[in-house]
Amino acid sequence: MRSCWLNGSFVPEDQAQVSIFDRGLLFGDGVYEVAAVFNGRLLDADRHLVRLERSQRELSLPAPYTSTVWLDVMQELATRNEIREGLVYLQVTRGVAERDFAFPASIKPTAFAWARPKRLSDDPNASGLTVHVVPDIRWGRCDIKSTAMLAQVLAKQAAREAGAGEALMHENGVVTEGGSSNVWIVNQGELQTRPVSEDILAGITRDVVVEVARELGLVVRERAFTVEQAMAADECFLTSATSFVLPITRIDQHVVSNGQPGPVTQRVRAAYLARAERLTAALVGASA
Amino acid sequence: MRSCWLNGSFVPEDQAQVSIFDRGLLFGDGVYEVAAVFNGRLLDADRHLVRLERSQRELSLPAPYTSTVWLDVMQELATRNEIREGLVYLQVTRGVAERDFAFPASIKPTAFAWARPKRLSDDPNASGLTVHVVPDIRWGRCDIKSTAMLAQVLAKQAAREAGAGEALMHENGVVTEGGSSNVWIVNQGELQTRPVSEDILAGITRDVVVEVARELGLVVRERAFTVEQAMAADECFLTSATSFVLPITRIDQHVVSNGQPGPVTQRVRAAYLARAERLTAALVGASA
Repeated sequence: MRSCWLNGSFVPEDQAQVSIFDRGLLFGDGVYEVAAVFNGRLLDADRHLVRLERSQRELSLPAPYTSTVWLDVMQELATRNEIREGLVYLQVTRGVAERDFAFPASIKPTAFAWARPKRLSDDPNASGLTVHVVPDIRWGRCDIKSTAMLAQVLAKQAAREAGAGEALMHENGVVTEGGSSNVWIVNQGELQTRPVSEDILAGITRDVVVEVARELGLVVRERAFTVEQAMAADECFLTSATSFVLPITRIDQHVVSNGQPGPVTQRVRAAYLARAERLTAALVGASA
Repeated sequence: MRSCWLNGSFVPEDQAQVSIFDRGLLFGDGVYEVAAVFNGRLLDADRHLVRLERSQRELSLPAPYTSTVWLDVMQELATRNEIREGLVYLQVTRGVAERDFAFPASIKPTAFAWARPKRLSDDPNASGLTVHVVPDIRWGRCDIKSTAMLAQVLAKQAAREAGAGEALMHENGVVTEGGSSNVWIVNQGELQTRPVSEDILAGITRDVVVEVARELGLVVRERAFTVEQAMAADECFLTSATSFVLPITRIDQHVVSNGQPGPVTQRVRAAYLARAERLTAALVGASA
């Protein structure tokens, strides 16, 4: 059985339970992070933990653990569950209290984490995936990585029902993000993705891809684009912590370019994988 | 210790726990209802259960229990916990599954419920409460009574920090609802409240108050109004299942009318209480 972690202890999955009075369950009053495990090591977990701190701060949610503690817990979950490639998920809620929308006076946050395997280096979607266009009906603070995500659940369910692997969300025709990813287009070798605001999540992988692309000598423009522009682009791809860089080869019935992963997308994906290999191999070396 | 109910069984509060893989906790993928207990009996629980069925249907969430089962569970919770005046809360989530935004193929919903006392006939806010104006930043399907409510949590926390008892949410100056209530104004004896749409929850108490007011011979107009119009109104009040009808006597620093509960508000509140008394006394009589 999988080993999980709850409020300071490693516990078997079937003992990892929280009260029905947990505010995470009653209100979606919590935040989370997902980091990739590559070569059995955490990838960019430090950056995810900086974002976790921001999410907690934006919600006046007292941080129950330091990044140092979280890093140990996350790595230990990967190790105990023998994850070579996969992910570690962690969540912090405002804790257990008599139900009241406003924050309880004194309350201990609930914190838990778990890990699971996922194919990353040989992601089956690396040959290209279809996205399904849906209106973005999320709330006004999409920059906070909260667990109140029913809109994303519905968007990604609609995508699945349409035979697509991800949702492409838009507001009045302007792309915001994927259901759980950032979206990019490529034209004449130049990359374009929406600038960070309260309308989208500032993806860790998005930031890394900006860096990786610039190291490759590519131009990156942070500017919004429409669904129509995505359909007309030379290439289209998405980024997320556990998908890395994946080509979008169809937008609903519309085939992007020739329907094959584009050369720039493939170059960026390869560079992202090489960086992941380099960073995690260094960690393996450090502890050997 | 309080007696709660979880997936078919009554359990002590400290045993009422769900998995950390419950989708209610991971995504806010669940719906809920709150019904008042008056004279030890459920008030309008049948109407709440009709709305529960609608919420489940809108989210393609399989209903784990019939209204008949829920009515028994809810009444039993009130009885076991000796609630004379209070509330029963129930929640249904999409259940426990490996984390994936889209719906799991086959999954048993999680269902739980609990009760607690609350002063209703002599609500301390019946002398009037202050509301705090905040922008409505919720998602696009406020008609679904889902638990993904972080926006409401933040709105009601902001209200508390401003010394107010409830939030008054608006979109571009037009009132949508309270943080967990519907809002009404009164001018020249006529009641006005926002029409039902995807922008607000169709309050059960709102519907009942429309009926009660019309029985009193009052005119009710279902039409949106602005925050400015609320400030300038003769009277202002809110309705919710566990507040019934409460006068709003201040909107932030602005005193509504003379700062006292208005005569129409008091008349409607009294008629609502009389109806609650009549309906629940009949239930007590029926089982005597």
